[in-house]
Formats: sequence, C-alpha cells, structure tokens
Amino acid sequence: MEDRAQIQEHIKTQGELVRRLKSEKASKEQIDEEVAKLLQLKAQLGGEDGKHQFVLKTPKGTRDYNPKQMAIREKVFNTIISCFKRHGAETIDTPVFELKETLTGKYGEDSKLIYDLKDQGGELLSLRYDLTVPFARYLAMNKITNIKRYHIAKVYRRDNPAMTRGRYREFYQCDFDIAGQYDAMIPDAECLKIVHEILSELQLGEFCIKVNDRRILDGMFAVCGVPDEKFRTICSTVDKLDKMSWEDVKKEMVNEKGLSEEAADQIGEYVSMRGGMDLAERLLQDQKMCQNKQACAGLSDIKLLFSYLQLFQVTDKVVFDLSLARGLDYYTGVIYEAVLTQAGLPPLANDSQNGASSEESAGVGSVAGGGRYDGLVGMFDPKGRKVPCVGVSIGIERIFSIMEQKAEASAEKVRTTEVQVMVASAQKNLLEERLRLVTELWSAGIKAEVMYKKNPKLLSQLQHCEEGGVPLVAILGEQELKDGVVKLRVVSTREEVRHTPLHNTRTCESSSGALHRHSCPETTRFLKDNISKS
Amino acid sequence: MEDRAQIQEHIKTQGELVRRLKSEKASKEQIDEEVAKLLQLKAQLGGEDGKHQFVLKTPKGTRDYNPKQMAIREKVFNTIISCFKRHGAETIDTPVFELKETLTGKYGEDSKLIYDLKDQGGELLSLRYDLTVPFARYLAMNKITNIKRYHIAKVYRRDNPAMTRGRYREFYQCDFDIAGQYDAMIPDAECLKIVHEILSELQLGEFCIKVNDRRILDGMFAVCGVPDEKFRTICSTVDKLDKMSWEDVKKEMVNEKGLSEEAADQIGEYVSMRGGMDLAERLLQDQKMCQNKQACAGLSDIKLLFSYLQLFQVTDKVVFDLSLARGLDYYTGVIYEAVLTQAGLPPLANDSQNGASSEESAGVGSVAGGGRYDGLVGMFDPKGRKVPCVGVSIGIERIFSIMEQKAEASAEKVRTTEVQVMVASAQKNLLEERLRLVTELWSAGIKAEVMYKKNPKLLSQLQHCEEGGVPLVAILGEQELKDGVVKLRVVSTREEVRHTPLHNTRTCESSSGALHRHSCPETTRFLKDNISKS
Repeated sequence: MEDRAQIQEHIKTQGELVRRLKSEKASKEQIDEEVAKLLQLKAQLGGEDGKHQFVLKTPKGTRDYNPKQMAIREKVFNTIISCFKRHGAETIDTPVFELKETLTGKYGEDSKLIYDLKDQGGELLSLRYDLTVPFARYLAMNKITNIKRYHIAKVYRRDNPAMTRGRYREFYQCDFDIAGQYDAMIPDAECLKIVHEILSELQLGEFCIKVNDRRILDGMFAVCGVPDEKFRTICSTVDKLDKMSWEDVKKEMVNEKGLSEEAADQIGEYVSMRGGMDLAERLLQDQKMCQNKQACAGLSDIKLLFSYLQLFQVTDKVVFDLSLARGLDYYTGVIYEAVLTQAGLPPLANDSQNGASSEESAGVGSVAGGGRYDGLVGMFDPKGRKVPCVGVSIGIERIFSIMEQKAEASAEKVRTTEVQVMVASAQKNLLEERLRLVTELWSAGIKAEVMYKKNPKLLSQLQHCEEGGVPLVAILGEQELKDGVVKLRVVSTREEVRHTPLHNTRTCESSSGALHRHSCPETTRFLKDNISKS
Repeated sequence: MEDRAQIQEHIKTQGELVRRLKSEKASKEQIDEEVAKLLQLKAQLGGEDGKHQFVLKTPKGTRDYNPKQMAIREKVFNTIISCFKRHGAETIDTPVFELKETLTGKYGEDSKLIYDLKDQGGELLSLRYDLTVPFARYLAMNKITNIKRYHIAKVYRRDNPAMTRGRYREFYQCDFDIAGQYDAMIPDAECLKIVHEILSELQLGEFCIKVNDRRILDGMFAVCGVPDEKFRTICSTVDKLDKMSWEDVKKEMVNEKGLSEEAADQIGEYVSMRGGMDLAERLLQDQKMCQNKQACAGLSDIKLLFSYLQLFQVTDKVVFDLSLARGLDYYTGVIYEAVLTQAGLPPLANDSQNGASSEESAGVGSVAGGGRYDGLVGMFDPKGRKVPCVGVSIGIERIFSIMEQKAEASAEKVRTTEVQVMVASAQKNLLEERLRLVTELWSAGIKAEVMYKKNPKLLSQLQHCEEGGVPLVAILGEQELKDGVVKLRVVSTREEVRHTPLHNTRTCESSSGALHRHSCPETTRFLKDNISKS
C-alpha cells in the first residue's frame, strides 16, 4: 500500500490538474473524470483517524450481476447457444487481452476507445474490443482455413456509458462466424437465419434485419461523385442516419466534410431506398449504379442472398436498406444489423437531443450486427493469405435489459436456485439427522439444502422455502424418527403428502458400518417420485 | 498507429535498457521480458518494405482454447456447476476489473502480481486477482449479510507461468462461498463436502484434502516462541513445506528470518503431525498447545468439523495437517487445500530444483483451496460491520490439463459439435432442396448442417461427417426426389436405414404458398425417430 505522504503528493498534483482543466474550460466529461480520480485518492487517504476508506462501487460503465439477473442471463445464453449448436458450430475462447499491436489499425476512429494495460514490464497489452479481431488472429496463428465457430465473452470499450439503456464499458458479445472459401452468399444467408431464429425465440417483439453491402455503398459514393479519399468519412456520416435526420446528415456532409450539395442530394436519394430482392433488381437496371462494377457485384450478391433467405423462410424480417453503413473498417461485403422496432423501448440518451423521428429512434434498438470481412485474417498472415469470413454478433446487454423489465412486470417469480427439497426439522437437536438425510439426497443427485443452524425454527425453514421457491420440505421430528418415517410437505399448498420409511430397520440390523446404516434407498426413491410430481 | 520515427525512438531506448540490464547482470527473467518487448517493437516497425508485421501470439502466460479443449472445458464446468446447484447455490458475476484500491492490501506480498490498467483518464483500475475480494466488495456494497453463491470466471496474476503444467497468467476459478452468521463449522463442512464430490465425480484419481486453522498456526507459533511480528513471515515459510524439505524450510527460518534454532525445532515437531479428529483431541491435551486460547478454539473447531465430515461421509479423504499454511492475508479460521496424490502427474518445473521428495511433490497437484475469512467484508464496510464467510475455490487449469491428457490417451474421439444430421446431395443442382430440408430440420429443433457449396461431392460430404462424428446423413438425389423420399444413412455402419416420404403430395396439392408447400412433418418425424435410435 502506498504511504500517506505519497498519496498526499498525488492529491496535490491531481488537485492542480483539476483546477487547470477548469480554468482552461475543458470538457465537462474530462473534468468529471479527473475529479472522480481526486475523490478516489482522498478516500484512499481516509478520515482523520487514518483509517483506509473505500469507494464502494464497480468501475465506471460496469456492473455486477445479482443472482436474479444471472438467472435471466443464463436463460438468454441457453437460447443463443442452442441456436448456435443447432447450426453445427464449435466454440473457442481467447484471452481477455491481446498484444496491443494485434488490435492496432482495425477499428478506425474507434481505436481511442481501447483499454490499454499498464506497462509493468513485458509485453504491451490491450483488452479486446470485440471478438472478431481475436478470431482472425486465432485463425492466422493456427493456419485454420475453415471453421464455423461461436464465441461468447465480454469485450471492453471506453465509450460513454448509458447503463440504464444497456450501454456498458464491459459487455457481452455472442458471436457466430463462418470462415472458409465457399460459394457466394450461402454462409451469409445462414448468419441472417440465425439472427432471425434467436430474436424470434427470445420473444423480444417485432424486429427487422437491415442488409446492405460495403461494395454497394462504395459504388454509390463513386457514382454520386464523392472523391475516393472521402469514402470513409462520408460513410461514417451515413452511419448516423439511424440516430439523425437526413437534413442533419446532409448538413454534416456539406458543411463539415466539404461534400458538394449535389453529391449529397444524390446520396440522399439512394439512402432513402428500402426493399427486398425487387430493389436489388431495380438498382441493377439503374443507369448510374450499373456503371460501377463494385456496386453491380454487391447488388447481384444481394439478389442471390434474398433467394437463399426465401428458402430459409426469413424474408419477412429482412430489408435491403441502402442507408445501413456499419462503422468498422474491416467489412468488405454484405453487412447487416438487427433492430427492435416495437414501441416501448427506453430510448438512448443521445436521441432526444437529435430530435430523431420515432421511426429513426427505433434504430437504436440495435441488438445484432455483422457482415463479411474477407481481408482481416490476411492482415495477420505473414504472407497475407486471405481467409474469407462472415459473421454476426448478438449484443446481449440490451436484450438483458428488456428481459429484466419483462421479468419485473411479470407475476411469475424468477428463481435463483434450483433447490428441490429443504431438509428441515420440527424440533431441537436434530442437526445430525438432517445432515445424514441431506447427504443421502445429494448422493442420489437431488438438489437439497439444510439451514446452517443447530436448532432452526420450523417457521424460518418454511419461510426460506417460500422466499426461494423451494417446492418441497422433508420434515424430521421426534415422532417421525420414532416411527421411522419422514414427512414431506408441498410448500405451495401446505399439503403434507405422505410418510415413508426413513430407515429400513431390517437393513439397519443386518449392517454394521455407520456408512451403510444410514443409506436408505426407499427415502430417496420416495422423494424423487414426489419431486417429479411437484 | 504510431509513426515509424516514434517506434524507432522506442526501439533505441528499449535497446539501451536491455544492454544496461545485461551489464548489471539483472535476473534472466527481467532481461527476457525486456528483450521480448524490444522484439515486439521491431516487429511493429516491420520489414524493409515498411509493411507492418505482426507477432502472432497470445500474451505471455495465456492461451486460446480450441474447440476440442472447449468441449472438455464444458464437461468439467458442467460437473462443477451441477454440484454447486445441487447444494443450492445462486450465482453472481462481477466486472473483470475493479477499482485499484479495492484490491489494495488484501494479498500481502502477492500484490505485486496484480495487473493494472493504464491511466487513460478516469478511475485507476486493476484486473481481479481472485473472486473472493470482488465477492466481499459485492456483499458490502449491497449490504448482503447472507448468501450462498458460486462464481466461475477468469482471474489474472502476473506470475511466472508454467503453461504445460497448467499454471497461467489468465486462469479460471470456480468459487463457492457461504456468507452469513451461522453455527460453527456447518458451512465449513459443506465446502469440504463439495470439494470431495467434485473431485470424485471428475475421476482425477486419488486425492486428499488437507485441513488446518489459521488460529492453530498462530497459537503454535506463539507457544514455540516465535515473536509476534514474525508470525506472517514464518507462516509463509511453513507454506513452502509442500515444495521444500523440512531441512530447507528450517534453514530459511533460522538463517534468513532469524528464528532461534530451538523455536524452529519445536515448529518442526508440530508441522510433521497429520491425523484426523484423534489428532485434534490429542493436541487439545498437549501441555503447550492448550495454554494458547486461539489454538484451543481452533482445535475444538477442527474436532467439530470432523464430526460433521463423518455425517457427510467424507472423512476418508480429509487429513488434519499442521503444515498447511495458505498464503493469503485474509483467512481467519479453518483453511484447506485439496491435492491430487496419484502418481503420473507431470511435476511443476520448480520442484526438481528443490529436490522434493515424492510425497512432497504430490503437493503441487493442488486443485482446490479455501478457508474462512470473517474479516474481509468488514474491510469494505464504512462501519466495519463483519459478515462471516467461508468458501472454496476450484482451480480448473490443472484439472483441464489432466482431462486433456486423458482424452488424448483415450480411443474415444472428442466431438466438438453436436450435429445430428448432415443434409447432403448425391447429384448436382440440389442446393435449393438441401436448404429447404435443413430449414425444416432446424425448425423441428434438429441440429443439422449443409455444406456451403452449390455442388459438393457426396464423398466430401460423407468425409465431413466421419471427421466430425456426425451420426446421420440425409441424402437427396434425383431419384429420391422423383420418388418423393429421402435416404437416411448411418455414418458409422454405412447402412442406409430407410426411405420416407419427402413431400406429402396430397398436402402439396391442397396448399398454395411456398412456405406451406415444403413443410413436411413426416420427414422430420422420421429423422427424429432415427436420431434417437442412432
């Protein structure tokens, strides 16, 4: 632990920093962060008694999961994993951090959001920002040229958190990717099929999967007269169309990014287009678009994609939307994003400021996204050998928020344990008997518990069951022990079902060892029968 | 990305550092680390073409899990989680990092192994070192006074890795803890019961659970004449008895730590003692020991503990061992550690150097540990309110290593997917039919896949099944389509089981929509029947 003098020195420096930032009129966010650090240091110094005081919180943008939240999380994961497995995926895992340079140059402007580790000697490390780059590194490192895998793990972004709406700095991604040289659009279509299955099964309400293609975007920019070097930056402005009105997007293009008004208007025409296979066919006939080779290739693929989506029976939810432009640098072909469209979702903080229309604000219900990235693995291969990849990432935090709200609203109680029987006693001095019986139940695979008291009150044992949703109580009492039976009580109805021989006397007599004496198959069989009934 | 000039500057400074360390004869480890960093920087600079080259590796002391390793990991986790649930535990999760100060002052000398995050503005953060301190922080923060929870997650230690033997810098812990004011030794005994169940179920061979008590250790040091201020340091020397001979331990006590030879010899007598309840009873009569209040309290509790362990039927594996002295600062009462005692475990790198006897080297097969920590939660509470806790942590990496070796040695192939049926075609141009059928199977909950080629060869489809252990293939061919049937083939026996109507013609005629036309309950029912048989 640092000593007081050192901490006091830190506090002094930090205080000066805060004052300077304030005088320089630095951003509120920056000042807040440095003030937080100052308070943290002061707390570390403690009160006048010198006692160390703790700031009792989790780091900014993170949270604990309590048992109820974990129960919901487990349910969501089970649905997602079942789907991934149904589609034949294997799973892998990678470390939470990577060499810093592994992440360098993959995320464009977002690289500033990467968490770095302190240089404590040795390698320079960063926390993973997504699961896609580690996956590409894994493929290149192990020279894997085809695999269908899922990966569920936490990723880290030093973004501005909006926690009540499910935006965190530490959050889960559930990724499914198909790597390999295959015929066009078949794996791409399966990724969309998977999103469709998962969102349907989770019953999150209406949703829509927007589809576009990086090549169509680039072709569109070209034919609208956007200079080559402005593709990226104009693309990132288009990407804001789910949060901003077209007027504001156009303003940004023209005023901030120096695009001609004419070019912006042409883009505006295209990005308002939405449709299905018909739209792809129409654009293939579009005089301007069909001049561009890239755009044509993209449009033909979209057409092919929709033919497979028809066979997969998911076209009801998929929309070809030319305004979709995902930010990440590494996409090379088809891109997609799933959004929840049903009303009743809490809006994200940013939206109200931007005066987004109701249709557009629905866009922030984004819960999955992905696309094709044929160049990423090659970036890691010493010889640049490419492995074509396509994948999808399900964003879980927002889904959790919705499921949590649903659970709150529902009358049904979320159980946080799976206990089937509580072994209770009606009188004092029966701890030994309780421990013996619960041991029998455990070895029979029954989920059971006892209270950790020598002489718990029957009422408090029953209350524990009611609170935790434990369906059955096996009650031991002096009379029962005398009669050699156990009383079984159904908690919900308070009905006492039946008595059963607790110890088979003949077995007892014929055996000698303590271990054998208490084994009582009849009791456990009786309990098992009643558990399956209850 | 940093520009070349900056990187070259870094390389220069780093090169100087390495040269200086070498001239100063710094430790090999330190030099290696700095050389690694130098190479990393050079690689970043790339070849003469200026092309960025990547070091293709995971950070030191970490690893990826490939699909086969994940399949084994899943199996181990399932066993452990089932046991935790059988004992009625809830589960929680906490962030991978904590405020730095949350971890400060909890780990004694080991604090230097904590990973810190870089100060990028905002709070100072560290990666969690174990799951116990975050658990205590969670309890204090949420004012929880009793809970039985498990938590399975990765923790981080900048320790010297020995990866082939399962010692990593990123590794899993599976923790089960009981917090709350209960009657003595009942929850403690359940923790040992849980270790016993898990290690038995995993079939890792013979094991032994050593038990001791922090109060007995302290009492022993007191009656042997160890000065108060030397308790901690002498205790950490005793802790090395599982890796060093008593002679070496004594040497360290006397020569390095300045203990009198007489005191050391007295300690030597005690720490050679091993037994069960009988030993606790004998030591309660021991003239010296029974003078010490702390020691007496500890010994009485060990006696009580063994009485519960008898009821739980686990005394066969539990040994009261006075040489057990776990390092962590926060233990206050009973402590325990489970070790695998069977021969055939690969020894850890350090052991051979220390000339450990075979019995002692078995000690490095430590796979679980824990104890009582009644003061930790109070360290986080502003008013110091205590919540008594006891828990156990299962170390998974070593168990994985053993399970992996077993899987390698076994003839049985580890499957990495759960695919039940491959939908294949015998001729060209049947992609549409394959996609239709696999869609049906998915919606019936059958795990199925198709190859992502328009015209895959039948042989390569069958090979894929043999390699991946897919038990069944549904084969579509022109003849089959004409006859309206599907051929089902058992991969292992190459037997072709039966034909079934592929499309019910009458249903087709009566319906009109494309969606309805291809739904074929008979096919899926037939496949389901055959899956359950295969």
